[in-house]
Amino acid sequence: VSDSLNLFAVLADIVGPAHVHRDAGDMAPFLTDWRGRYRGQALCVVRPGSTEEVAAIVAACNAADVAMVPQGGNTGLVGGATPCSPSRHARGEIVVCLTRMNRIRAIDLDNNTITVEAGCILQSVQEAAAAAGRLFPLSLAAEGSATIGGNLSTNAGGVQVLRYGNMRELTLGLEVVMADGRVWDGLRGLRKDNTGYDLKHLLIGAEGTLGLITAAVLKLFPLPRDKATAWVAVSSPAAAVELLGRLRDTCGERVSAFEIIGQSALGLVLRHIPQTRAPLAAVHPWQVLLELTDMDAAGNLNGRLEQLLVREMGGGCLLDGVVAKSESQAQAVWNLRENISEAQRIEGISIKHDISLPISRIAEFIARADLLLEKQMPGLRIVCFGHIGDGNLHYNLSKALPQDNDEFIAGQPAVNRMVHDLVHALGGSISAEHGLGQLKRDEIRRYKSQVELDLMRSIKSALDPRGLMNPGKML
Amino acid sequence: VSDSLNLFAVLADIVGPAHVHRDAGDMAPFLTDWRGRYRGQALCVVRPGSTEEVAAIVAACNAADVAMVPQGGNTGLVGGATPCSPSRHARGEIVVCLTRMNRIRAIDLDNNTITVEAGCILQSVQEAAAAAGRLFPLSLAAEGSATIGGNLSTNAGGVQVLRYGNMRELTLGLEVVMADGRVWDGLRGLRKDNTGYDLKHLLIGAEGTLGLITAAVLKLFPLPRDKATAWVAVSSPAAAVELLGRLRDTCGERVSAFEIIGQSALGLVLRHIPQTRAPLAAVHPWQVLLELTDMDAAGNLNGRLEQLLVREMGGGCLLDGVVAKSESQAQAVWNLRENISEAQRIEGISIKHDISLPISRIAEFIARADLLLEKQMPGLRIVCFGHIGDGNLHYNLSKALPQDNDEFIAGQPAVNRMVHDLVHALGGSISAEHGLGQLKRDEIRRYKSQVELDLMRSIKSALDPRGLMNPGKML
Repeated sequence: VSDSLNLFAVLADIVGPAHVHRDAGDMAPFLTDWRGRYRGQALCVVRPGSTEEVAAIVAACNAADVAMVPQGGNTGLVGGATPCSPSRHARGEIVVCLTRMNRIRAIDLDNNTITVEAGCILQSVQEAAAAAGRLFPLSLAAEGSATIGGNLSTNAGGVQVLRYGNMRELTLGLEVVMADGRVWDGLRGLRKDNTGYDLKHLLIGAEGTLGLITAAVLKLFPLPRDKATAWVAVSSPAAAVELLGRLRDTCGERVSAFEIIGQSALGLVLRHIPQTRAPLAAVHPWQVLLELTDMDAAGNLNGRLEQLLVREMGGGCLLDGVVAKSESQAQAVWNLRENISEAQRIEGISIKHDISLPISRIAEFIARADLLLEKQMPGLRIVCFGHIGDGNLHYNLSKALPQDNDEFIAGQPAVNRMVHDLVHALGGSISAEHGLGQLKRDEIRRYKSQVELDLMRSIKSALDPRGLMNPGKML
Repeated sequence: VSDSLNLFAVLADIVGPAHVHRDAGDMAPFLTDWRGRYRGQALCVVRPGSTEEVAAIVAACNAADVAMVPQGGNTGLVGGATPCSPSRHARGEIVVCLTRMNRIRAIDLDNNTITVEAGCILQSVQEAAAAAGRLFPLSLAAEGSATIGGNLSTNAGGVQVLRYGNMRELTLGLEVVMADGRVWDGLRGLRKDNTGYDLKHLLIGAEGTLGLITAAVLKLFPLPRDKATAWVAVSSPAAAVELLGRLRDTCGERVSAFEIIGQSALGLVLRHIPQTRAPLAAVHPWQVLLELTDMDAAGNLNGRLEQLLVREMGGGCLLDGVVAKSESQAQAVWNLRENISEAQRIEGISIKHDISLPISRIAEFIARADLLLEKQMPGLRIVCFGHIGDGNLHYNLSKALPQDNDEFIAGQPAVNRMVHDLVHALGGSISAEHGLGQLKRDEIRRYKSQVELDLMRSIKSALDPRGLMNPGKML
């Protein structure tokens, strides 16, 4: 206890007493994830305002032998930002909340870079870029509260990866407080730098287990000046993959989103989200929301997309489709896509799989997984949608209508096993863009080779020998 | 000696006696780099034909406590694939030449991936992709002999990075024999995979110091169907950066190359390379070779580029320019660009700097570096060219015409120091795309922070605790 009191005093000295929370009520929002799946315990929550303060906090935690859980907007889906319960470190854990570190440090227009602190909300970075006449392309449903630090630590993806890449591809430099409290200043704005191991890529996607990211240099892009959005019905997932191939073949990088949406996903949105309606008259098993963008305003993308779709209509892949005639029509179809998770939440409990596959194996996966699950849990509703252009499916399950929650949840381990075994057999990944966190920490051992697990543990031991950085996550 | 003889016997068992070279004459080509700057010594050269053979070689070297130097096409510029002299390992080093491992293992058209062995020559991968109707975009002067393994280990760049990224961005998966002889099978063809530390990015650019890359899954792209190539004169490097900004603003990713070429670089090519001629009538201090490409054949890129350049002519940045009217005209201007290094080699000895900067600092760098060097070595000829769109300059120096070689070379350390100090002060990198190897192994210590050097050494110790992987390179 006196150790803890001493640590609280040191932390209060570092960040100011107002930024150390110890009351249960004050701490509560930091100790559970937003889906309510995990509840953790922590000695306190500390909210630093600068890199120097973070470094001092890490030093203090080293001195007190206390572990740290970095947290941003707390929008993660795998419990990676929630402390463990019981604590995974003998002397306990503190939550280090980065949201006070929310400065845009610099924008360099000629270099097309923006330097931001880890606590910046993604949407505010998008807005700062737009105000400077540039695009920061990372875009995902939680962008109004997710922070850049979390985006980096989970290598966030979202709906524009097809064109612009994951968070990893959007990052040129990092500033990180390492496990020993030293600051690694890797805030470089360089497209080419071959001077040693790429520490940046090691820290990105490490879920806070190797160090605490405090700032980043991110890439900016020219703002698109033309856009065409379509909602089309396709005959099958294989048809969607075929269509994607032909679209990219003629339109290249202009294909900036290509999202597949199964009928049951659309149905949930239409049922639960007010003011939504189906874009097409008939009901189809599969639809694709696709978007082309171009910096060139003179290319008449809408007209071109219409031509392309008309040409496709004879081929058997495309069953029907509509090109948005206005920004509000485009917003309306995006609204359908962005509300799937919310609609599924309203419908009731769900089992989620955030998986990826080689694009060439997606159709086979869906066909085989559907069959397996129908046998295992008759009546189960498969809510399948995702970023098919990146091979990333959200293969989610809602319970059969008469089934009760307990029975459904009791079946989760078997269902997860079935889905993930199939993903693995087809060369895929059991976590495409959400990370491992607490949710898949144990399960990943089934699928990673011993060599790879050993390599990961060697790196963890080398960079965080005392195990103070986000223990119990990922490894 | 008997230890060595034993090792030779074991290696001959693994790869067959024909693939172990011990004669000085047989070994000679493997013991020097192509520029002839480094000469190393090795116990033998071994040429495995499969991943299993590489794994067995690494195990044998562990048993014999002998170090390994991986080598591909031997086209590196920093001595990274040449053994050290004296050997940096007490029991000596062997060269492991990967060029027999040159199979294209698979092409997946729907997934847009190609799986290749490390010994494949870059050009043969480009050709295999083209034969399948796809583009593998990595392109560099040495592509006719450089291998994929070397491209990966140095994170190669080249002339299309602006659009498609470095080798790092082009790679989805790796197969690597780790330092203990175990094979890490990370040959995944996934765009999204967030299941732990990104080992792939750690191995790429590691110059063979962490493991021996045996195969990779690489990204493929649609083939461009339209292309426009121009050679333009600009008033200054700052004008080139401005022009690039406006081009990307309207053309986006279509800008696939943007190469700056100083007058002295062009002059050397015109003097030494047969059948070359200046594309423009007047002599200008700076020119840019730029290229737009598009998958869409209907966009009339040539016409658009002409329009854009005409509009620029009034603005002060652009002084003159010509758009290639045919593929042979395009080849002719690319020929000027690709022969700069060769022309400089014919001219005589040179001091090279492969540096990168934030694009916003390039003009300032050139102005300040030119001034400093003119003071230091009057009459020195600065041969400056490079991938300005990536912030990457080849800031090379040829001796003053009356100066003798010894005097010039004696000045190299001071000149390097001056150039690299300025690069560092402006937030740049002293090795943009060639790596550190032996050439910059010591110098990098001046510019990397102690924290970063410590992190790199921790990783090296964790993954190669016995120091058997390419000792004396990078670290």
